[in-house]
Amino acid sequence: MRGFADRVAVADALRWLDTQAWRPEAEEIAVDQAAGRVLAAPISAPEDMPPADCAAIDGFAVQAQDSLGAGDYDPAVLTLTGADGPVLPGRAAPIVAGMELPPGADAILPFEWTQAQDNRVELFVPAAEGEGVARRAQQLRAGATLLDSGRELRPGDLGALSGLGIDRVAVLRRPRVRLVVAAPKGIGRDANGPLLQSLVARDGGLVVEVAAGLADQAAIAERMAAPGADLILVAGRSGTGSDDVAPLALAAIGQTAIHGIALQPGGSTGMGLARNLPVILLPGDPLACLVAYEIFAGRLIRLSGGRGPDFPHRVCEAELAGKIASAVGCVEFRQMRLARGRAEPLAVPETGGLAAALGADGFLVVPAPLEGYAPGARVRVHLYDRGWQP
Amino acid sequence: MRGFADRVAVADALRWLDTQAWRPEAEEIAVDQAAGRVLAAPISAPEDMPPADCAAIDGFAVQAQDSLGAGDYDPAVLTLTGADGPVLPGRAAPIVAGMELPPGADAILPFEWTQAQDNRVELFVPAAEGEGVARRAQQLRAGATLLDSGRELRPGDLGALSGLGIDRVAVLRRPRVRLVVAAPKGIGRDANGPLLQSLVARDGGLVVEVAAGLADQAAIAERMAAPGADLILVAGRSGTGSDDVAPLALAAIGQTAIHGIALQPGGSTGMGLARNLPVILLPGDPLACLVAYEIFAGRLIRLSGGRGPDFPHRVCEAELAGKIASAVGCVEFRQMRLARGRAEPLAVPETGGLAAALGADGFLVVPAPLEGYAPGARVRVHLYDRGWQP
Repeated sequence: MRGFADRVAVADALRWLDTQAWRPEAEEIAVDQAAGRVLAAPISAPEDMPPADCAAIDGFAVQAQDSLGAGDYDPAVLTLTGADGPVLPGRAAPIVAGMELPPGADAILPFEWTQAQDNRVELFVPAAEGEGVARRAQQLRAGATLLDSGRELRPGDLGALSGLGIDRVAVLRRPRVRLVVAAPKGIGRDANGPLLQSLVARDGGLVVEVAAGLADQAAIAERMAAPGADLILVAGRSGTGSDDVAPLALAAIGQTAIHGIALQPGGSTGMGLARNLPVILLPGDPLACLVAYEIFAGRLIRLSGGRGPDFPHRVCEAELAGKIASAVGCVEFRQMRLARGRAEPLAVPETGGLAAALGADGFLVVPAPLEGYAPGARVRVHLYDRGWQP
Repeated sequence: MRGFADRVAVADALRWLDTQAWRPEAEEIAVDQAAGRVLAAPISAPEDMPPADCAAIDGFAVQAQDSLGAGDYDPAVLTLTGADGPVLPGRAAPIVAGMELPPGADAILPFEWTQAQDNRVELFVPAAEGEGVARRAQQLRAGATLLDSGRELRPGDLGALSGLGIDRVAVLRRPRVRLVVAAPKGIGRDANGPLLQSLVARDGGLVVEVAAGLADQAAIAERMAAPGADLILVAGRSGTGSDDVAPLALAAIGQTAIHGIALQPGGSTGMGLARNLPVILLPGDPLACLVAYEIFAGRLIRLSGGRGPDFPHRVCEAELAGKIASAVGCVEFRQMRLARGRAEPLAVPETGGLAAALGADGFLVVPAPLEGYAPGARVRVHLYDRGWQP
């Protein structure tokens, strides 16, 4: 019941937090399970691609010299032979893209420019040597780097790796996060469990446990100290009121590094170490919890999973419709609505603001040195949805 | 072995495809499993929020009139009482944010502006009536619409709904997709299974089966006709070569609507109905398969899951570094690299281009009526990664 006499600057809290990021170990998983995972090591081409001269298109494999001078009214006439060849002078073998070039052939003419009947094939255009052929190693030499370590694997990556015969990849382990959700105070209900579960998953973390409904110091301390997680997020009971037992639990079994931050909302955030593992104390009010997660916890999870520190949201630049006032020295998160290309700050109550924030399209961060923004200023809004396009 | 004499315009193929989108049924799921799912019906507030007058901050609940004239050197001195009240004149009750306002109290002063010792509390500033109090229904009235039908649920939504006591939500069923992956031709390996699995998941679809390695018409036809899916994607064997059995399978058990599209790469794409379910025949070359998925299959999955038709990628506008030539009448997908704020087309071979596309940051779509872009043109690149910010 003492409030926060001093609040730590957000920049200082981030500096402490960044020193807590750990270097994740690697694990090997199947390629088809690896979408969105982060590569632990570079991947090189295991073989030439293509591994041999092969057809780049569907058509007839021929010797180019046989088609010399062919035209619409004067086709070159060849004899059909089997797809495996050999393609001797005067012969043409049907072939489909991806098949090895039959011996003797040096060009492929697409079916569109030919006409086949019985065992005769007419070519209506001349073929140049090498036409329609993909040469061995034309795309990749064995040993060439395909993907660098740190790559967040995309659908196309999974396809390309599989196509090269790579079925398993070494990726960074996902940060294992335990959520300790304090029982809501007073007449509230738990909003933070579902909120944090989906945020941790978004940032590539793995929620290993949700311990919800805890209200006393010993129970919270026990879940902070339990093994099996890399990071503990405690939501709720983070303030300085009589039942704010989370900071007491941290102090009892570990070291409090920071408690009370110049951040609005989210000022009661704390952080420290328990059994040498990072613990972040997030405020119980769901909007403040969201903000503190976004600025602190999400960053640590992303960094410790081998990702970048920045917010994962799309950014939209827009003109500010109203005025935003903010205390100098304090980082403020404002809920914003986009309407007719302009960004409007939403009025959100001090507590219980998450329901009011349902109408927001994104958030705006006012940096600590600023006292806000004037109407008409160009601001950057971080968008909550995935579909909105600038 | 006939090639495509006529190719259908991409716009016409999309018109046919859009008529195949179905209205998904609703299913009820737990809120904490609902991130990214699409609401099937609007959600209204089940009760007032807050449901009663309550504390908006941690502090002492008082009668505002008792603090009149209080100052740093002349504090108002009150007597401590229990948190449940009643707060009679001259009394102050400790309270934490979210608790119901005790009877008698009409304001809350934060702990920072008070000092408590033994059972006395000193207030150093006057409190206005209503200060620090969240009034019943201040944020929401029971019955007010919280979220509209069609909303893609965000982490904050899950928190807000849970906080209002809503534990289950009606969402649209995910489109059930069967992947029928034809055995690669010639010396290729299957790239399309892992590629399509991750793309379908990205677009909110549910892969119910991956039938891989099929090479004959009857086997492919059998998986087209099997129950349990809403959409069949067949990858490979879509062309007009001798072993291109996918179009034959579709024609045998259903109706082919379109085969051969003015799209590059991806021109051998087909589509039709089997047992009244949509079937899309995607090319076997992995890059062509990716392109045909993005323009056709992904759109149908998104539409039939209640999402928008547009590409889900972030878009970046940039100046074109080179020149892009494209055939008039044909939609072309070009792989693009972003370097120093400019967009460069990547050289990608006709087949096996997915490995070359690993170096691409995104793709550019050249619309059918254009013959390309001149150097320096402003173009829109759809980005493959999730982290890149304009």
